Amino acid sequence: EIEYLQSVLPSTMEEAFFDYLRTVDASEVTVSSVPEGSVVFARVPLLQVKGPLLVVQLLETTLLCLVNYASLVATNAARFRMLAGPDKKLMEMGLRRAQGPDGGLSASKYSYVGGFDSTSNVLAGKLFGIPVGGTVAHSYIMSFASLEEVQPRVRGPASGLHARLMCAMEIQRWVLRTGRGLGHLEVCLYRPYRKGEAGSDPGGCLIVPRRLFQGLLDAYCVMGSGVPNFCAVALALNQLGYRAAGVRVDSGDLGQQSRAIRRVLQTCGAAFQVPWLATIPIAVSSDVSERSLQELMQEGNEIDMVGIGTNLVTCPLQPSLGCVYKLVQVNGRPTLKLTEEEEKMTVPGSKAVYRLRDAAGLAFMDLMALETEPPPQAGREVSVRLLGWHEEARRVTPMAVETLHRTYFKDGQVCQALPSLLEIKSHVRASLSTLSPVHKRLQEPEPYQVAVTEKLHFLLNDLRRSSQ
Amino acid sequence: EIEYLQSVLPSTMEEAFFDYLRTVDASEVTVSSVPEGSVVFARVPLLQVKGPLLVVQLLETTLLCLVNYASLVATNAARFRMLAGPDKKLMEMGLRRAQGPDGGLSASKYSYVGGFDSTSNVLAGKLFGIPVGGTVAHSYIMSFASLEEVQPRVRGPASGLHARLMCAMEIQRWVLRTGRGLGHLEVCLYRPYRKGEAGSDPGGCLIVPRRLFQGLLDAYCVMGSGVPNFCAVALALNQLGYRAAGVRVDSGDLGQQSRAIRRVLQTCGAAFQVPWLATIPIAVSSDVSERSLQELMQEGNEIDMVGIGTNLVTCPLQPSLGCVYKLVQVNGRPTLKLTEEEEKMTVPGSKAVYRLRDAAGLAFMDLMALETEPPPQAGREVSVRLLGWHEEARRVTPMAVETLHRTYFKDGQVCQALPSLLEIKSHVRASLSTLSPVHKRLQEPEPYQVAVTEKLHFLLNDLRRSSQ
Repeated sequence: EIEYLQSVLPSTMEEAFFDYLRTVDASEVTVSSVPEGSVVFARVPLLQVKGPLLVVQLLETTLLCLVNYASLVATNAARFRMLAGPDKKLMEMGLRRAQGPDGGLSASKYSYVGGFDSTSNVLAGKLFGIPVGGTVAHSYIMSFASLEEVQPRVRGPASGLHARLMCAMEIQRWVLRTGRGLGHLEVCLYRPYRKGEAGSDPGGCLIVPRRLFQGLLDAYCVMGSGVPNFCAVALALNQLGYRAAGVRVDSGDLGQQSRAIRRVLQTCGAAFQVPWLATIPIAVSSDVSERSLQELMQEGNEIDMVGIGTNLVTCPLQPSLGCVYKLVQVNGRPTLKLTEEEEKMTVPGSKAVYRLRDAAGLAFMDLMALETEPPPQAGREVSVRLLGWHEEARRVTPMAVETLHRTYFKDGQVCQALPSLLEIKSHVRASLSTLSPVHKRLQEPEPYQVAVTEKLHFLLNDLRRSSQ
Repeated sequence: EIEYLQSVLPSTMEEAFFDYLRTVDASEVTVSSVPEGSVVFARVPLLQVKGPLLVVQLLETTLLCLVNYASLVATNAARFRMLAGPDKKLMEMGLRRAQGPDGGLSASKYSYVGGFDSTSNVLAGKLFGIPVGGTVAHSYIMSFASLEEVQPRVRGPASGLHARLMCAMEIQRWVLRTGRGLGHLEVCLYRPYRKGEAGSDPGGCLIVPRRLFQGLLDAYCVMGSGVPNFCAVALALNQLGYRAAGVRVDSGDLGQQSRAIRRVLQTCGAAFQVPWLATIPIAVSSDVSERSLQELMQEGNEIDMVGIGTNLVTCPLQPSLGCVYKLVQVNGRPTLKLTEEEEKMTVPGSKAVYRLRDAAGLAFMDLMALETEPPPQAGREVSVRLLGWHEEARRVTPMAVETLHRTYFKDGQVCQALPSLLEIKSHVRASLSTLSPVHKRLQEPEPYQVAVTEKLHFLLNDLRRSSQ
């Protein structure tokens, strides 16, 4: 790195500068932060970084880059989760629209943290232990023009099974009275679930990863060929001891189709006395957005799993998060970035942040105080000012007080055990659960209160006056 | 990877499948593509991938991930370049809003390809040879509360220079009659440009990378302290043989301020007989978007350099590009993805694509033909159909014909020299220059014509009929 810098900087640069760069490290840096996965609010510091000015300024872009997109996509994922409710499976499928392969890894990781159940990014699964889940491509289905072509694609000693399957399928198709079979073959893929003991008929497993596949119904026509073909194959495989993993629809009116598909599955399951068929999961995908998911939820649906890609990873409703990194104290002196835009005004000084909760355990205010002030006490009234030019003092009594920041890095060392991805994910859920629904609703949420202590308020005003 | 897959797939999976995976490679894959940096249009294939079905399907997400965001951000960069005209320097500064550190690398690389001049991402500079350029942080300026504090931060044997500089600055400040000096110190940073010979006074170089810095004028008040302080320091340094590299403004009305700053620089340069001061580059940044840049260009400005971050790398006007990967031929049989949405209809078969140009050398149509058809000839009339359900045949006569696709990968090998980043960047410029302005205007461009040969048209219709 230093050689590269020397190559692009003017030859008149002092050698001492590069010697100095060789000595730069984070041994004098301290980082405190809210725990990863915490709900946070505008104006409240997420991280506080202390150390030599040059070093902490070198960290600026790195920290912003690591925090901004991660927080944005985790928030977006959490919004989808709140919309979908706790029971639907949410699958992240955004890799093809992410900012390159590694942008895609960030997307997968933080979508999982925010509330998704799985990713289609197998590398993210491998690296981070996220459950993987995906779909079969339309092009795979379209690659078969007739039943005969399926034959050579079954590998290994499965040909006996295959012949029995083909025969059973023909019978089922005849019973289901669909005349479209051979022209429009949907190949349905199955979880190798067995009625008998594990280990029996080991040759009978189709080459199908357990969690990766459902039958895809809309390669041609959902109700005209997709569903009848799926039922024919599912019933045939059922006779051989296998159970279908589910179905997916990737186009059209997802809610209406899910209800129609469920009715067919129920009818078919009852008619053929295959009760599990009625309840197999129905998955949908098709450019699902916050808005379309909301409509789906409002109209009622029979959907069990939702795959979301583009509208999750690129966050089109707000494609970037504007976290900033500001100097608030230097050589013990609090500083202020003067600006006419009130929302860009920084809050000076090294601060502690407290989350105040009411009697029901819900958070109602984040209170910033100077680090040197005594913390507010549960059950004791405290005088605060909401952030703003002309806010009056008001008195609040928290029933519980939580100190938000913890020191994670000190003297060049991580000084606290870092949580696992699963722990962060569960902290997201816990943190959101302490928030009143009025702040969480997706449209026009009630603003959450962010305040400073009287002491910080007066410091802010003093600095503002002396700067003008 | 295979061990990981074994760990997440059911234990009933055939071992033969994993043995097979160990043998999978791209030795039977052929990839043809338009040259990187070419202007392309909807419906025309960018890449064609041939090979065993399983292998080319494994490549789907990887190729889409590599192509989609890269093409999106290069296009966005090219739009900014078209707006700014050829002379303004465009600096990419989006790392802090990109999808993690590596998403940021993709953003820097393809912004450069699309027409930007530099990146603030030093790692992208190192890895890809992109010129690096950046800015000094507001927080750095704010870290100084008085002139005295500047002293200990000048390293090495520069203290003699420093003392002379301080003295000269005081005089200039007095001449400039600004009373705000000591309370609001803007530290201005300089390119170590020397009047005398290189090598003289080697201790006199401030620690300032050549291409990274300009004076930042708006930490406090642009016209009230930023510009007078800058002029004081610039004039003082000029007496010592140094020349300021430029100034930057990061807030407020950028066009109006650039004009006001230029007037002061001109007046000051003339009054002190320092002519270069009148023409130093003025750089701006401040959430510059396509729209705000357009307004800047329309109202007139004195801006030489524009830094663009968020609105470049997150492409908020269209946060994702919807390239898809479709099966068009299998076992020699052209296939069609049936859909009611005409714009999602695929064009079947393995194709050649020709770009037809008129007498002025401008491209007027991309023509898709079956690979087996003879190519259209310059000066010969050819019968074509625009893409659409009910288009009539029309006859066009190209004056030049360009074959768009080249084979880049064959039999497991890259089979053509790949262009350097600079060559790709210059191909972007060349490719755009063959396009009429009516297609390039940013609002309501005239659609470019995309057509198929009669033969392909009939194949498409036959497939559609037989599928219904």
